[in-house]
Amino acid sequence: MNYFEESLKLHEEKVGKINVTSKVAVNTRDDLSLAYTPGVAEPCRKIHENKENVYKYTSKGNLVAVVTDGTAVLGLGDIGPMAGLPVMEGKAILFKEFADVDAFPICLDTKNVDEIVKAVKLIAPGFGGINLEDIGAPRCFEVEERLKKELDIPVFHDDQHGTAIVVLAGLINALKVVEKKIEDIKVVVNGAGAAGTAIAKLLLSSGVKNLIACDKVGILYKGIENVDEAKKELAKITNLDNIKGTLADALVGADVFIGVSAPGIVTQEMVRTMNKDSILFAMANPTPEIMPDDAKAAGARVIGTGRSDFPNQVNNVLAFPGIFRGALDVRAKEINEEMKIAAAYAIASMIKDEDLNDNNVIPYALDRTVAANVAEAIKEAARKSGAARV
Amino acid sequence: MNYFEESLKLHEEKVGKINVTSKVAVNTRDDLSLAYTPGVAEPCRKIHENKENVYKYTSKGNLVAVVTDGTAVLGLGDIGPMAGLPVMEGKAILFKEFADVDAFPICLDTKNVDEIVKAVKLIAPGFGGINLEDIGAPRCFEVEERLKKELDIPVFHDDQHGTAIVVLAGLINALKVVEKKIEDIKVVVNGAGAAGTAIAKLLLSSGVKNLIACDKVGILYKGIENVDEAKKELAKITNLDNIKGTLADALVGADVFIGVSAPGIVTQEMVRTMNKDSILFAMANPTPEIMPDDAKAAGARVIGTGRSDFPNQVNNVLAFPGIFRGALDVRAKEINEEMKIAAAYAIASMIKDEDLNDNNVIPYALDRTVAANVAEAIKEAARKSGAARV
Repeated sequence: MNYFEESLKLHEEKVGKINVTSKVAVNTRDDLSLAYTPGVAEPCRKIHENKENVYKYTSKGNLVAVVTDGTAVLGLGDIGPMAGLPVMEGKAILFKEFADVDAFPICLDTKNVDEIVKAVKLIAPGFGGINLEDIGAPRCFEVEERLKKELDIPVFHDDQHGTAIVVLAGLINALKVVEKKIEDIKVVVNGAGAAGTAIAKLLLSSGVKNLIACDKVGILYKGIENVDEAKKELAKITNLDNIKGTLADALVGADVFIGVSAPGIVTQEMVRTMNKDSILFAMANPTPEIMPDDAKAAGARVIGTGRSDFPNQVNNVLAFPGIFRGALDVRAKEINEEMKIAAAYAIASMIKDEDLNDNNVIPYALDRTVAANVAEAIKEAARKSGAARV
Repeated sequence: MNYFEESLKLHEEKVGKINVTSKVAVNTRDDLSLAYTPGVAEPCRKIHENKENVYKYTSKGNLVAVVTDGTAVLGLGDIGPMAGLPVMEGKAILFKEFADVDAFPICLDTKNVDEIVKAVKLIAPGFGGINLEDIGAPRCFEVEERLKKELDIPVFHDDQHGTAIVVLAGLINALKVVEKKIEDIKVVVNGAGAAGTAIAKLLLSSGVKNLIACDKVGILYKGIENVDEAKKELAKITNLDNIKGTLADALVGADVFIGVSAPGIVTQEMVRTMNKDSILFAMANPTPEIMPDDAKAAGARVIGTGRSDFPNQVNNVLAFPGIFRGALDVRAKEINEEMKIAAAYAIASMIKDEDLNDNNVIPYALDRTVAANVAEAIKEAARKSGAARV
């Protein structure tokens, strides 16, 4: 199937992918009097009396804004908010289909961090959560950080944390397959943008000790100059031996390669320098950093990509629907590290130990049972960590 | 039925009134590849190439933001954006049910005009139209004026123009019943807020020559001091003889009273001073400026109210769904005076001449055939006036 051509047809035929529909009938005068005036005044009054009632009488508690500025859309880059809309609508329907979360695209006509933050804060009263999407690094870090601080509803940048959570899930299972411990491994993350930075941080939170982050300039090290602040910050918490050099240098003796970078930049020679039973998540789109067959031929053991036509697909849809389902259900004030790690373990646990193997460390992206499990894990972690409000 | 109690039950049982649903299936890998990655990249690219394609491949062209700041919600006043949400959700479902327009509540956490304008402009890329709702006067005038100027999608403040259009429709028919001509009548509009001001302006655009606007301070006249700028402006275009005095003074010799003011402020004595076959639209909520029976007993001929339990209900649902349906269908860049007047005539025309009588000048609010007629009239007027883009 030619996905591009068929997708265009589908989008044109349906004229977009979302509907806003009514949960209540409006056929009679009484219907109108209950759903609208004069009856509707009563839920309004109750919310005015006590803001918490907004969760009881409105859709807020199940509504997530999918917010973008259109600057980092898929592999297309800065194509603007309107051109990002098909992706945001796609995200919205995945929220609905996988976790019954009502999600709505908000495409912002600005790239300015202050304006993005301001706009999201202004529209926040109607939403139970904010999913940031396809906002370029490093602006996405500041946007998320400020919104997390200033809003009392969960704010989650999926390109960062959704990807990080699914990678961690895959890594948890891959380490079982190769019988290595998370605290013993050496990990190289290549591509220190939104996803790479979040992956590095989540792995460090999850027990990884030895992690090197690389970017176009090579290995990030303390004191590095020609990179942005976010990468300097990342250098401070990674690369404990503070080595310098290229990606190839970093990979020598590594157990795990995680790529959110560019097609074909990992060679078989590089894989051969990695430790035995190496694990690669090569997630460049549409072509991985190294093709799975080439990596295997060079000695790699477990290989995941972003693609559905290879085993071990890293697909965020395994994470974000269940994460927001759980967060909304307990009215979590945030989605914290404990919750993210719990989500990763929940995803990993979907594959029973006896079914684990090189080609089966990440559940099938369309497995409808994953989201409910993730949601349960999120709720429990939210309660334990104090993020839950009900 | 106790509408308040029942409405509360309904809202609690349904937990709000809106859903965001998917137009496409997401059951297989192929489904996912078309609705989301990798296929979705193609509509994104097409929109990036040509912005107009956003109407072809996304939901934008059928999406209306129902925007409020929660400062003038129903008769409840400034109850805040969250407490206004049940009304905005109600509006959204009426858009959907009556005209298949997908409408979504945007409740803004600010009362500042600059911030409201800014927020709406920032979120505009994802919407085909903006319906302003329950924003207090006089701020609503500036918000609407600026947004109309700065956006290329239709912006419509329903509390102003929706009400004005339905009143004009009722007046058109009432004048047929009493056999008077619009250019000969004397009209008194009481309550110079959002609705009253818009009614006055639309009636002047529609042929009324003699119109006096009153507010709490009495008759508005040129040179009046103790009122806001919007009311001073209104005074400049009304009250040609520049009389001063009270509402009672204004009503002497009037043919039409239009009240968007306060319960019970029109007395039978006042009605008796009006011309023969007087017409009253007494729309104060929940209790009219004068009860229909009292007005009739004092000599009035046609009486409309905002209530569904009396004849001639002025209900905006007769206007806004069809107006946006038509405006979206021709991608109107605005909703101009010609389009509003056309909508009023379309609503009026729903009652055949032979069916017109004192108690039947406005169609039944739930008549599902009205919106389609209004939409057709809007499209035609948009084409004639140059507002249509397709």
